[in-house]
Amino acid sequence: MLENIRVVLVQPKGSGNIGSVARAMKNMGASDLAIIGRGRTESFWARAMAAHAKDILKGARRFATLREAVADCGLVVGTTCRGGLYRDHSRSPRTTAPEIVAAARAGKCALVFGPEDHGLDNDDLRYCQLLITIPTGVAYPSLNLAQAATICLYEIFFAAMENIPAEEIERAPAEDVERLFDRMKTSMLDIGYLDPQNPEHILFAFRRIFGRAGLEEKDVRILTGLFRQIQWYAAEGWKTVEEKKRKGLKIR
Amino acid sequence: MLENIRVVLVQPKGSGNIGSVARAMKNMGASDLAIIGRGRTESFWARAMAAHAKDILKGARRFATLREAVADCGLVVGTTCRGGLYRDHSRSPRTTAPEIVAAARAGKCALVFGPEDHGLDNDDLRYCQLLITIPTGVAYPSLNLAQAATICLYEIFFAAMENIPAEEIERAPAEDVERLFDRMKTSMLDIGYLDPQNPEHILFAFRRIFGRAGLEEKDVRILTGLFRQIQWYAAEGWKTVEEKKRKGLKIR
Repeated sequence: MLENIRVVLVQPKGSGNIGSVARAMKNMGASDLAIIGRGRTESFWARAMAAHAKDILKGARRFATLREAVADCGLVVGTTCRGGLYRDHSRSPRTTAPEIVAAARAGKCALVFGPEDHGLDNDDLRYCQLLITIPTGVAYPSLNLAQAATICLYEIFFAAMENIPAEEIERAPAEDVERLFDRMKTSMLDIGYLDPQNPEHILFAFRRIFGRAGLEEKDVRILTGLFRQIQWYAAEGWKTVEEKKRKGLKIR
Repeated sequence: MLENIRVVLVQPKGSGNIGSVARAMKNMGASDLAIIGRGRTESFWARAMAAHAKDILKGARRFATLREAVADCGLVVGTTCRGGLYRDHSRSPRTTAPEIVAAARAGKCALVFGPEDHGLDNDDLRYCQLLITIPTGVAYPSLNLAQAATICLYEIFFAAMENIPAEEIERAPAEDVERLFDRMKTSMLDIGYLDPQNPEHILFAFRRIFGRAGLEEKDVRILTGLFRQIQWYAAEGWKTVEEKKRKGLKIR
């Protein structure tokens, strides 16, 4: 989904960072890496941090200028951690990601990161049609290059997946749950746990817990199994166990 | 806002990763770092990658076991990149972040990461009430440890910035819940409900349900009461009941 996303690193210094960026790209399904400057892609640290994304390092292309690196891109998105002149229109990656995804459906889209120490300068920003600033705490707003790239790619990936249904559980039919509660009541009475005068009182606590959790059918089966076992034990299972004890057999 | 978030690294191998995690923590306003195992916090790479977050490395606490590291936490959230047994209920960090923020308003909340090569094992997962899987492409789903931590912390930070109503329930400390599970295991073995060869298998289902629900202290008390009663019944309670039966007395 992210094959039209090009990650452009401007004058990166740490080759470990380049490797880490490559890994994050592969994690999120991007593969088009462009580098301005002399950042090494074949060093030990670049390869070590790339792990299984060495193919992306190998395929990285080098450009003399940012302008050339983004020449064929429909959308160019810069990243900055600073506010200030030319930067006050920057937005969060969350807000911007859907736009990036839409643009990347139509053509190439560049995501540009500056050098570790200074970030993108104003000359670079000229080529950026949109600006992203990752929200951080005030005490230490400067993210590591590869971590910043990871967050941006993750946001784009997430937006590209869209309509992903949040993992929700499928609750069992209410009647199945009620039968479970019937059985719970009986078995808890069997072992003297519930007050026969007011068994519902404690059962309410269980209803609340399970209501909050939501029970799927498999959960109902497992819980039913436990309370069925309690019933069986109270009715006759104890005899088996006592007999084993008498014969000196292992119980568990 | 994230001062109640504890990042727990289980057996981290790369000290550079520990430093990178520390940096991401400081970027996002977290500072409570716990380490299980021998991961070095004072090495060159740990300090280099931490950059201006060396104070977090210095303040990191070491624990012998995960259980101890999360003992005072109301919510324990594990991270995994694999699906499969015991892991199929994991959700995205986006979906889970508001819950984490809400829980962190009420008490300590742990975010647990496994070692770089294997991730959290099933023993570790026992202590995790919720599971997070970061969505990735299929070609290379395994994120670098520090990059995974960055995404999770970023999502939590983002959720914390938004106005999220606090969770209605106040989760009991993890250690209290663990003692409940200890008792559940014993009592379920007593009545022959669990397979003595693999008692944890079924217990996982209970962990999942109660993890989803969240247990308050009163819930833990009520559940403890039930399983204590089961233990008592299995040990001697059945005698009382049988005697009543013999005498023609009402049991319930």
